[in-house]
Amino acid sequence: MPSSEVPDIVIGRMPIYLRALRFMAAAGQEITSSHELGQRLGISSAQIRKDLSHFGEFGKQGTGYRISHLQDQIKRILKVEQEWEVALIGIGDLGHAIARYGGFADRGFRITLLFDSDPAKIGTRIDNLEILDVARLKEIVAERRIKIVMIAVPAQAAQQVADLCIEAGVKAMLNYAPITLTAPEGVRVQHSDPVAYLQRMTYYL
Amino acid sequence: MPSSEVPDIVIGRMPIYLRALRFMAAAGQEITSSHELGQRLGISSAQIRKDLSHFGEFGKQGTGYRISHLQDQIKRILKVEQEWEVALIGIGDLGHAIARYGGFADRGFRITLLFDSDPAKIGTRIDNLEILDVARLKEIVAERRIKIVMIAVPAQAAQQVADLCIEAGVKAMLNYAPITLTAPEGVRVQHSDPVAYLQRMTYYL
Repeated sequence: MPSSEVPDIVIGRMPIYLRALRFMAAAGQEITSSHELGQRLGISSAQIRKDLSHFGEFGKQGTGYRISHLQDQIKRILKVEQEWEVALIGIGDLGHAIARYGGFADRGFRITLLFDSDPAKIGTRIDNLEILDVARLKEIVAERRIKIVMIAVPAQAAQQVADLCIEAGVKAMLNYAPITLTAPEGVRVQHSDPVAYLQRMTYYL
Repeated sequence: MPSSEVPDIVIGRMPIYLRALRFMAAAGQEITSSHELGQRLGISSAQIRKDLSHFGEFGKQGTGYRISHLQDQIKRILKVEQEWEVALIGIGDLGHAIARYGGFADRGFRITLLFDSDPAKIGTRIDNLEILDVARLKEIVAERRIKIVMIAVPAQAAQQVADLCIEAGVKAMLNYAPITLTAPEGVRVQHSDPVAYLQRMTYYL
């Protein structure tokens, strides 16, 4: 089945599967099943098998999935078998935490550019990576052909920063600002919004 | 239809609708349509109408949705028409950013408790809220009947903190640590994982 026909909602579950597989592999486990994955994630095993079937056959009936193989396949599907360079814009408390986040390694992404507008921060370093002037964002992001950015600037600056990124050729933006960004077709935006996560849980309380 | 029959995936989209409606309302807009919402969110209008139909009738054919009414209804469905008290555990860079995050107001949550294990932080304040000793977490969370926590501690401490919260009666945990938390049935866990967001976008690059 051509990839364009896979529902976005299925794509959204693939990173969740990958994270769970990674966790199992780290614990030394080699084989899993749709049943076990489902139990861990609160998703039915039938749903997991159906999701994976969009992309081919990954296990044999009755023997489960070989975790390392399934990880490799999902990484290939999500195009994270190699590392993407990511620019992070906005180095406040949150940006600082993201820059130092320990969860990126080996998962397909490396933050290689930091930008801020504060003269007191520009030129300083986080883990050996220099904070650059956001005035040079468009030029540098275009030159380095960066396709992915994380935006951690204040709400009132977020759309402007997003527009600059789009002009520079960025195709995927993860937004942390408490505002809904708009982007033209062909540019994807995800919002990291703690409230949306919390609201999804209160339904069940 | 009883709420237990609404698929979790539908529940997960309700906060996204609510965020978009909030954005429209803030811009002074009074009426919207499933078509407009869908365009903004990259979801088909049919999907939006189907999602909302799980909960009743919110608009008239051809006249669209009254934004303030639809907001109220979704808030009621998600149980965020009132404010929930939330405890935040781990006041590093990330916890500090969460504590000061501007996106909680009027969306159903208020951080009323901060915990950390660092003696240098305990007793200090963020915006007038005192940082408490995590050794007192279980006692205070139980006493205050807190049902929702956000966990922003290092990965190696996250499961232990989660277990304490569960013992204290917590039913919903938003985890920022780069580790998959396990919890018994009846306790919901959401993982705020920037990599999962990024991986969901690279598929389309």
